Amino acid sequence: MGALRDAPPAALLSSARDGDRAALARMLSLVERGGEGARAVARTVFPEAGRAHTIGITGAPGAGKSSLTSALCRTMRDAGEKVAVLAVDPSSPFSGGAILGDRVRMGDHTLDDGVYIRSMATRGHLGGLSLATPEAVRVLDAVGYEWVVVETVGVGQVEVEVAGAADTTVVVVNPGWGDAVQANKAGLMEIADVFVINKADRAGAGDTRRDLENMLSLGARRELPPAVLETVATTGRGVAELWAALQEHRRLVTESGVLARRRAARADEELRDVVTARLTERAAALCDGQAWDDARRAVLDGSLDPWAAADRLLD
Amino acid sequence: MGALRDAPPAALLSSARDGDRAALARMLSLVERGGEGARAVARTVFPEAGRAHTIGITGAPGAGKSSLTSALCRTMRDAGEKVAVLAVDPSSPFSGGAILGDRVRMGDHTLDDGVYIRSMATRGHLGGLSLATPEAVRVLDAVGYEWVVVETVGVGQVEVEVAGAADTTVVVVNPGWGDAVQANKAGLMEIADVFVINKADRAGAGDTRRDLENMLSLGARRELPPAVLETVATTGRGVAELWAALQEHRRLVTESGVLARRRAARADEELRDVVTARLTERAAALCDGQAWDDARRAVLDGSLDPWAAADRLLD
Repeated sequence: MGALRDAPPAALLSSARDGDRAALARMLSLVERGGEGARAVARTVFPEAGRAHTIGITGAPGAGKSSLTSALCRTMRDAGEKVAVLAVDPSSPFSGGAILGDRVRMGDHTLDDGVYIRSMATRGHLGGLSLATPEAVRVLDAVGYEWVVVETVGVGQVEVEVAGAADTTVVVVNPGWGDAVQANKAGLMEIADVFVINKADRAGAGDTRRDLENMLSLGARRELPPAVLETVATTGRGVAELWAALQEHRRLVTESGVLARRRAARADEELRDVVTARLTERAAALCDGQAWDDARRAVLDGSLDPWAAADRLLD
Repeated sequence: MGALRDAPPAALLSSARDGDRAALARMLSLVERGGEGARAVARTVFPEAGRAHTIGITGAPGAGKSSLTSALCRTMRDAGEKVAVLAVDPSSPFSGGAILGDRVRMGDHTLDDGVYIRSMATRGHLGGLSLATPEAVRVLDAVGYEWVVVETVGVGQVEVEVAGAADTTVVVVNPGWGDAVQANKAGLMEIADVFVINKADRAGAGDTRRDLENMLSLGARRELPPAVLETVATTGRGVAELWAALQEHRRLVTESGVLARRRAARADEELRDVVTARLTERAAALCDGQAWDDARRAVLDGSLDPWAAADRLLD
């Protein structure tokens, strides 16, 4: 463990490629933690990444995302694919802890060498999950996973952004009228490449399909209209069809040039976010010392509003 | 409408205090939109705010937050209180649109002058909902609403942060084992001042209470241990007890000095966020021109990772 802790990223990458999971876990921990360690990993893996196709899976808590991810992994493994799963968990703002629910539920894969599963939270990474996730994906990509599944725990702003930044985004809903409406409210209509109505053996799957198709027809025209599939993750029903749809989407976006355009747009977005993160570091340095104390006191006693106080600090 | 559009914030505030809802709506739109209009509103209302007590209401989609908020408003109105509700909706990242579901469902209050209800999204506000929400709350506070309820649509990172920044935070869960676990995962245990088990007429309310109390006993010790209440929002059961618990919490935090400490910490946090937002504006200015084109091209062709490219831009 001591050797691993001191190993340079290039050595970790080489070990991870030889199947050393501890080395891979170490790289991902460095990414989560941010700072110079994460930078060093990023420099090492960046030129080695670009071959993996990423699948984002999002949907409300309880929709069955973890079961579906697990069933999908099994199907992909049966097809001989190497798969990594990042269960992305905006950690509790106070404790910084992510609980292990997902990992436990997906436990049937933990001894399978072709599947790597990791719950990921940010512990100090400056750019939060929006920046840490693409960096973690590049680590898995550079290590040789051809498919990287990014599963989020919910449908908040950050989670939608993270899942929407995948090459193919799957939105999981359940039967019942409310779910399609909630998906729309959460901004999921625009990011979905594939809709999955999971738990489709329950009443209302047809209604949900109709609602989704209605909302899609009302929305902006898409280059590739999203597929709507039905699954029952717990029995495996529909999972082979989902896998087929994912391969088909990958083929279509690759051949049409849509994927290259999306990735270029994402690269721009990421660079912008990194510039912001660097400037945020400088802001943190400003929020200290006598000038900071004066500014916060002025806000507290009501003599300056926060924007006026910030401008005084920055000048 | 033309007169309203050109009215200075002080005139809008004065009209809103006289009961002009259009003037109030105009101020809140200015806050949502950000920029100089929002700054002008902030300068005007900042010295006038500080009397309202804010209640954050959060929980998973479908937990019944809107029904509970509506029932709570009715009880508060019966007690003679003036209440404003902000339904905070991180708008779809693509369309910028918030749908009106909450406003429609809470329609029974729209003709009651003592209740003001508004769905709020950010349309361009630089600091997002985390900064726009306290500004909107100060508008309602300055206009004379003594209670401001901030209801979020879900439990993503931003929503939890926004609801957790209230003076009293209510977390709504439903009967059933999974809900307490999901609440824990979403970071809700640490921010809750009051837990409400809504739909408590369904099976499993006792189990949920036990789960919550177990998790609370395992967590960090709190200055004021959260209350756990049961409601059926649709029939009004337990809503009077919730209102009593909110008044009691307000009394306790005010008298103990906890509220003053929390507000000072939040003011620091807000000032920090405003400094970051200002620096982000400067970042946006950097992401343009020849140097930007060179940096993004280097990332796209794989010769520089994003952090190295950002540092080159900033130097």
